[in-house]
Amino acid sequence: MTITTQKWQSLWINVNLATMTQGGDGYGIIEQGALAVCEGKIAWLGPQAELPDYDPAGLEVIDGQGQWLTPGLIDCHTHLVYGGNRANEFEMRLQGASYEEIANAGGGIVSTVAATRAASEEQLFASALPRLTALHQQGVTTVEIKSGYGLDTENEIKMLKVAGLLAEALPVTVKRTFLGAHALPVEYKGRADDYIDLVCGQMMPQIAREKLADAVDVFCEGIGFNLEQTRRVFASAQKHQLPVKVHAEQLSDLGGTELAADYQALSSDHLEFLSEAGVKAMAKADMAAVLLPGAFYFLRETQLPPIELLRRHKVAMALASDANPGSSPINSIQLMLHMACTLFRLTPAEALAGVTCFAAKALGLSAEKGQLAVGYDADLALWNISQPAELSYQFGVNPLTALVKSGVKVIG
Amino acid sequence: MTITTQKWQSLWINVNLATMTQGGDGYGIIEQGALAVCEGKIAWLGPQAELPDYDPAGLEVIDGQGQWLTPGLIDCHTHLVYGGNRANEFEMRLQGASYEEIANAGGGIVSTVAATRAASEEQLFASALPRLTALHQQGVTTVEIKSGYGLDTENEIKMLKVAGLLAEALPVTVKRTFLGAHALPVEYKGRADDYIDLVCGQMMPQIAREKLADAVDVFCEGIGFNLEQTRRVFASAQKHQLPVKVHAEQLSDLGGTELAADYQALSSDHLEFLSEAGVKAMAKADMAAVLLPGAFYFLRETQLPPIELLRRHKVAMALASDANPGSSPINSIQLMLHMACTLFRLTPAEALAGVTCFAAKALGLSAEKGQLAVGYDADLALWNISQPAELSYQFGVNPLTALVKSGVKVIG
Ligand SMILES: [Zn+2]
Ligand SMILES: [Zn+2]
Repeated sequence: MTITTQKWQSLWINVNLATMTQGGDGYGIIEQGALAVCEGKIAWLGPQAELPDYDPAGLEVIDGQGQWLTPGLIDCHTHLVYGGNRANEFEMRLQGASYEEIANAGGGIVSTVAATRAASEEQLFASALPRLTALHQQGVTTVEIKSGYGLDTENEIKMLKVAGLLAEALPVTVKRTFLGAHALPVEYKGRADDYIDLVCGQMMPQIAREKLADAVDVFCEGIGFNLEQTRRVFASAQKHQLPVKVHAEQLSDLGGTELAADYQALSSDHLEFLSEAGVKAMAKADMAAVLLPGAFYFLRETQLPPIELLRRHKVAMALASDANPGSSPINSIQLMLHMACTLFRLTPAEALAGVTCFAAKALGLSAEKGQLAVGYDADLALWNISQPAELSYQFGVNPLTALVKSGVKVIG
Repeated sequence: MTITTQKWQSLWINVNLATMTQGGDGYGIIEQGALAVCEGKIAWLGPQAELPDYDPAGLEVIDGQGQWLTPGLIDCHTHLVYGGNRANEFEMRLQGASYEEIANAGGGIVSTVAATRAASEEQLFASALPRLTALHQQGVTTVEIKSGYGLDTENEIKMLKVAGLLAEALPVTVKRTFLGAHALPVEYKGRADDYIDLVCGQMMPQIAREKLADAVDVFCEGIGFNLEQTRRVFASAQKHQLPVKVHAEQLSDLGGTELAADYQALSSDHLEFLSEAGVKAMAKADMAAVLLPGAFYFLRETQLPPIELLRRHKVAMALASDANPGSSPINSIQLMLHMACTLFRLTPAEALAGVTCFAAKALGLSAEKGQLAVGYDADLALWNISQPAELSYQFGVNPLTALVKSGVKVIG
C-alpha cells in the first residue's frame, strides 16, 4: 500500500467550515474541520479526524480555536472610485430643498462627474483607498469596481486605471467593469445615441485593447439608456469578447434583464421591478441576480425585488454594496448581510451565499472563488462567531479575526 | 492693562469646531478654531486668531490639520449587557418558522433572560466588552446601559454591576439605568402586579442603597407594563431620588409619555405612536425624545415618530442605538446617524445633536457633556471630514481619527 504524504504550506485546524458549496441551500457545514493550503489554493478540506498523512516540515499550522472559516467575501457591485461626495446635497434635501434647488446648486450625478473629471488619478486613488480598506477589513478579498463617472474616454480610462492601482495597494482582487453607459454627460444632452456612438466606437475599443476592463455594464432605465442603446453597447462588448452585465428593473420594468439574457450576461442588478418572464430568462441564461439592499434602503424604495420568484426559478442571488455617492453611500458588506435579511427577508444562508459563491458567479469567477473547495483560491475569512447566522443577525461588532488572500494571511 | 497668561494642559489648533451649543438648530460652527483643555475640562475655545496669551511650558499642542472636532458621542439608550444571542431565532424566522415554533424552541426575550441569568459576571462582561468597544471606536465617550434581562433582584443587580465594570475597562462614562420593569419573568406569569411589588419593594431599595443606578426605566406597552404599574415604579423611583425614563408609544399610544412627564422624566424613548398631546407634555416637562431608528428598521415598522410635531414644539430629539439582542442587534452609533436621516428624515445637524447635546440631556448631563463649551467635560472626537453632514451622509468608512476622554487622548 502506497502512502501519499501531502506537502502543504499551511494547515488550518480546529475550525468549523462554512464551505458555501451548496449555493443558497445552506452553508455546506463541516464541523471540527481542517483546511490545507498549497500554492495559494485549497489543497484539502474535511473533518479534521479524516486528515490524510502530511509532511509537517515547513508547514504552518494555525489553530482556529473553534471559530468559523468561510470563503473571503466578494462585493460584486461597487462604484468605489469617484471624486467629491454628495454630503451637501444630502443635507440640502433633508433641509427641504427641492430637486430644482439641488440641481441649481450643482447636485446630482452631474456633480460627481464634474468632481471625478477634475480629480487626478492620485486624488481618486486617495479617496477610494479608505473605502476599499473598509470593505477589506470586513472580510472582502474580491471586489468589483465600475467606471461610469468619467463619461468621456479619458476619464473613464482614468477611473479604470485607478481601480487597477487599488488592486496593487491592497491584497484584494479587483474586477473592473466599464460602465460608460451609466448616465448621459451634460455635453451630450438630447443626443444619447451620439453618446452611445462614443461609448461603442471609441471608449470600448480602447478599453478592450488596453485590457482595462473585465466586463461591460449599462444602466438600462428611463433615467439611463433605453433598450436599443443598451443592445448596441452589449453588441459592441460582445465584439470585443467582454462579458456584459446590466443595471435593470430598478425603477421600472423596461426589459433590460431579458435583453441581457440574450447576450448571456453575467448578471442583472437591482431588479425591484423584474417580472416573472425576466426571472425565467435569467434562469435560462444562468445569470446571477445581484440584489442591492443599500440602494433600496437609501432611496426608501417600497417595491421589493421578486425574491420568491428568484428562489422558485433557482436564480443565484448575489448581494452587493452598490457603494456609490448618490444612491448608496455605504461602504459595508456586513451591513448588506444584515439588510438583505432584514429588508429583503433572505435567510442568513442565502445572504452569505450572496457575498460568496453567488457573488463569484456574478463576476464569472464561479470556478475559482467564493467556495471552500479543493482547487479553489485560498481566500479565507475567519470569524469569531458561534454559528454562521451571526454574520447577518448582528451588526456593529466586526467578528472578523483573520483574513487570508491566496493562502497568505493579510489580517489577523 | 493686566495680561492673564492661561495655563492649559493641551491645546488643539487648526481645527473646525462643531460646538453643538445651539441644540438642533445647527452645528454651532467655529471655523479655523482652537480649543484648550485644563484639568479635563474645556478651558477656552474660539477662532484660533483670537487665542489669548497662554503659557507654552508643558503644553501639548495638537494640530488638527483642518479636521472637525465635535463633542464625544453619547449613546443614551442601550441594552448592551445580556447573555447569549438570538441568531438562531433570527434564522428560524427567516426560514419561515412561526412565532409559536420559535417560542417552543425557546426564542424571544425569555431566551435572553434565561441566558443572562445563567451567565456569570465575567461572562456577561466578556460578551458586552466588544459591543462597547465597537461603540467607543466610533466616537462614543458616554453610554447608557440598562438592566432588564435579569428580572429578579440578584440578576438585575448582576447586570448593573457588569455595566459598572465596563466603565472601568474602557475610557467611557457609563450611566446605568434600572429597567426591572422590562418584561414579566415567566415565574410571574399572570401576576404582573406581584412582579411590580418585587421591583418596587425589593429591587429598587437595594439598587438605590448600593447606588447601582442613575435612573429608572419602564417598558410601558401592551406587551410590557400598563400605566398603573408604570406609575407605581415611577413613584418608587421618586421616593428613592432616582430620575425616571420610559419606553413608550412604540407600538401603541398608551399615554406612558404623559405619565412620565408628570414625574419630570428625563426622556421618553421610541415614540412612534406619540400623540400631539404627548408631544406637548414632553415640551412642558422639558423631556428629551429618544428616537431609536435601529429598532424601527429591524422590526420593519412603518409608523414614523412624529418628528414634525417634536420640531414644532421644540422637544429635544436624542438618538440612540437601542443595542439589544431582540429588536436592534446593532452596535453602531454611526449607523444611527445614517438611519435617522434616511429613515426619519432628520437633518444631519439634528442627527448630530441627537448623539451629543440632546443625548446628554436624555441622561441628565446637559450641564457637563455633549457640547463644546467652556467648563464642559473635554470629551472630544476628531473627524476626517470636510463638513459635519458627512457624519450622517456616508456610512462604512469610520472617519474618527482621534478621541479624547476628560482631556486625555484615548484613540488616535
Ligand atoms: Zn450600481
Ligand atoms: Zn430599549
